[in-house]
Amino acid sequence: MSDRTAGRPRTIDPDRVSLVALRLFHERGYDTVSMDEVAGAAGVSRRSLFRLFPTKASLVWGGLDEFVDRFTAALARQEDAESADLALRRAYEAAARFPAGTVETTRHRLRVISANPALRAEGVGRSAALVDEVVRFIGVRDGLPDHDLSAVVRAHAFAAASGAALAWWAAHDAGRPEAVVARALAHLR
Amino acid sequence: MSDRTAGRPRTIDPDRVSLVALRLFHERGYDTVSMDEVAGAAGVSRRSLFRLFPTKASLVWGGLDEFVDRFTAALARQEDAESADLALRRAYEAAARFPAGTVETTRHRLRVISANPALRAEGVGRSAALVDEVVRFIGVRDGLPDHDLSAVVRAHAFAAASGAALAWWAAHDAGRPEAVVARALAHLR
Repeated sequence: MSDRTAGRPRTIDPDRVSLVALRLFHERGYDTVSMDEVAGAAGVSRRSLFRLFPTKASLVWGGLDEFVDRFTAALARQEDAESADLALRRAYEAAARFPAGTVETTRHRLRVISANPALRAEGVGRSAALVDEVVRFIGVRDGLPDHDLSAVVRAHAFAAASGAALAWWAAHDAGRPEAVVARALAHLR
Repeated sequence: MSDRTAGRPRTIDPDRVSLVALRLFHERGYDTVSMDEVAGAAGVSRRSLFRLFPTKASLVWGGLDEFVDRFTAALARQEDAESADLALRRAYEAAARFPAGTVETTRHRLRVISANPALRAEGVGRSAALVDEVVRFIGVRDGLPDHDLSAVVRAHAFAAASGAALAWWAAHDAGRPEAVVARALAHLR
């Protein structure tokens, strides 16, 4: 159970630990699996596990920060898109381009989230800042007043549609997530 | 503080108690107000309060069940609408026709929910069954296979847009909520 061999610290791969945890959550339910069980299954000490993942939730959400980074970077590149809606479709599609090595871990993350109402609700909270950013983007891009109803509604609709598309991909589609997001957002036109 | 006078039980109006509680939540923040303080401000005993409202959350959510009832009833009447999207717009608009006597309480409910991330997240969980109902409606109405991506995405987009429209109405609009929902959903066309 120790992650040290002969006094030398072994490098722990956080992605591997996440994947072990996500498989356990998927098989047995997120709520019933303890951090001790995750540590045991991953072959790392409880202490090392908590150093990498301070909470059980961080085992689930860790890899989704890069989604937000890709989204923000892509949106910044869309200044000459013909419309705010087109810019948003492209940015959500770019965000869904998870690197090949992380696609299956992402699928596990999304399945665990979909299966757990508390995690689904937490996801909405976690995406609130991104939605606010999108409201501002639409407002500036379309020259709308602050707190314009249309900007608020479109931002929430895009966020919900993208989230639903990713959950659908994780459950039903063996291909690339960005292809599903692109098809999904075409339905908002 | 007792809600009995000379041994005779006084009738307690749940709507009035909710409104007192919602005003306290709005002024001081949902998390910082205790059930004892709600009982005190409403002039009812702690016991009577808990009989009517078993949890603090039920003071916030109580009146939104009728929203779901109006939605479900309206959707059942839309069988000859030209499209599933038109049927959904009409059903969300009908659901937002809060009776005149409850409009300002509803505004308070929505403001308290908007101001509290945990309540916002809870709202998403509470609307999950309604979204599933909408996915099934779109699937049947448009003759789509089970778990069709388009039905799932449109159902989530409509739910998010309606929720955002109601929150926007509570914060920014002095008129009727269904008028705002109608304008908001027109942006999904």
